[in-house]
Amino acid sequence: MQDLLREIIFPLLGDEMLPAAEDAACLQMPPGRLALTTDSFVVKPLFFPGGDIGKLAVCGTVNDLAMVGARPMYLTLGLILEEGLALATLEKVLRSVADQAGRAGVRVVAGDTKVVEPGMADGMYVNTAGVGVIPEGRNITIGGASPGDVLIVNGFVGDHGIAVLKDREGFNFDLDLDSDCAPLNGLVERMLDAGTVHALRDPTRGGLAAALKEMATSSGCALELVEDDIPVREGVRAICEMLGLDPLYVANEGKLLAAVPESDAGAVLEALKSDPLGGDSRAIGRAVAGRKGRVNLLTPLGSERLLRMPSGEQLPRIC
Amino acid sequence: MQDLLREIIFPLLGDEMLPAAEDAACLQMPPGRLALTTDSFVVKPLFFPGGDIGKLAVCGTVNDLAMVGARPMYLTLGLILEEGLALATLEKVLRSVADQAGRAGVRVVAGDTKVVEPGMADGMYVNTAGVGVIPEGRNITIGGASPGDVLIVNGFVGDHGIAVLKDREGFNFDLDLDSDCAPLNGLVERMLDAGTVHALRDPTRGGLAAALKEMATSSGCALELVEDDIPVREGVRAICEMLGLDPLYVANEGKLLAAVPESDAGAVLEALKSDPLGGDSRAIGRAVAGRKGRVNLLTPLGSERLLRMPSGEQLPRIC
Repeated sequence: MQDLLREIIFPLLGDEMLPAAEDAACLQMPPGRLALTTDSFVVKPLFFPGGDIGKLAVCGTVNDLAMVGARPMYLTLGLILEEGLALATLEKVLRSVADQAGRAGVRVVAGDTKVVEPGMADGMYVNTAGVGVIPEGRNITIGGASPGDVLIVNGFVGDHGIAVLKDREGFNFDLDLDSDCAPLNGLVERMLDAGTVHALRDPTRGGLAAALKEMATSSGCALELVEDDIPVREGVRAICEMLGLDPLYVANEGKLLAAVPESDAGAVLEALKSDPLGGDSRAIGRAVAGRKGRVNLLTPLGSERLLRMPSGEQLPRIC
Repeated sequence: MQDLLREIIFPLLGDEMLPAAEDAACLQMPPGRLALTTDSFVVKPLFFPGGDIGKLAVCGTVNDLAMVGARPMYLTLGLILEEGLALATLEKVLRSVADQAGRAGVRVVAGDTKVVEPGMADGMYVNTAGVGVIPEGRNITIGGASPGDVLIVNGFVGDHGIAVLKDREGFNFDLDLDSDCAPLNGLVERMLDAGTVHALRDPTRGGLAAALKEMATSSGCALELVEDDIPVREGVRAICEMLGLDPLYVANEGKLLAAVPESDAGAVLEALKSDPLGGDSRAIGRAVAGRKGRVNLLTPLGSERLLRMPSGEQLPRIC
């Protein structure tokens, strides 16, 4: 363990604050409320098109912080490794953690490693917890949407879940698809520079549908969407049709759903589009006065469809 | 997952701040530096004499924070559950998490649950991350021991590791032994009220020996101990002898090693002894000028024995 730390983990995550010997990292914090979150990752396979378990862990945790308006600052990294895991695999994952932490501007300051017997962890499981600071005056919450707000997503939905599934199951579809896995904190800062944002959510497990349902329920209003305005890649749509999946329920790892007051929607949309992670951003609907939690989808045929909260996991081991 | 949260996790950890719908908890922090730590727990079996994986997780994380002089405040809880795990087992573990969090005065404010296939997580794995605040003026570090400091432990060493091992392997020893698993933050506050403490470490994996080696190495001094002064229960000593283990290398989960300036050692020892978690506290040696990292044990026969850093894990899956 000491060797693992010294030879692999420290050089890769070489932060001067990673407490080589201390039991806890001791950190300075800027003023503001503290945001705290955690996620465990059990994605299978460990490496997939567009990402790996390390990238996923950093992005997932950074994004959870960004969704409450926090500036992500520090991460912890808990590894559960299966005995016999190739060191090259571990190194590749840790390199990915370091890359994404750098990209997101966060530091890995505390970690832990446990080893379990072969067959007991499917290669490796990763847990990350994240700490961020919410600057004075920001008040973004999943319950913040108001009637009249414009709903915006920053691009195509369903890419992550289908990319992992396709790779894992070895489907022979002629489709070049990467996970959208990315840290969104920079994008959120750009949005907040451009205007007011009432509510944010990253549509991970349960997909856009779960994020919409949660926003409507927490905000005490209804949401109206135009199905055709929701960006879904043709290939993702085709695979979903073949497998009987609904792309609105498929996980994303680099997407956000925002509720923005109408007065600021144009400016926020422009800000999103000016960022590489938001080039395909689109307004997809509105918050309206109506029954709390109701999410109504206007279909291309002119009919209406009520979205429901997903029951159970549509796709297991996707994050 | 939503059902699991609503029906089991929230009622048990029912903190108003546990973010039912938010991606991250938003928290107020008192002034001071922030302490941040994480640990994963893979103990086998999940329940053992004197504790379980939930108690272990809370105590382990609280203690890591306390060892840098932080007041533990918030925990995150990441669960990796094996499909088919009995809900009663989960509930029992969560009840234990809630009990110990209450005992330590910390709040579980964020969580995550993942489910993996049968055979993939040995029941459950738990990760906790902890946030604490280090009040102005406290500067306790593993590297803080100075020549002349008195080394103190708060009781018998080796109980946790042997209690788990005995239970797991079904050894038929006539010994009633519980893990010492306990949150030590209250004890640390009591010590700090009584006097100055230079260095603290909880001797978990690697036991007292690893804690001593780390303290000596980080502090740049040598440590001299009297073997007979180190409290080890007769039963633990006997089992260790039969199994070829050294109790000084066996894990503890409710012990601390402190380096205290001689002037304050008496008062700090008294304070420890007045607490139920410190009744068997004892001075076991001193920091001395000498080769950095050297830990010398004076044996009952008058000979000297140099302690080495444990190489590899003596006992796997003990925490």
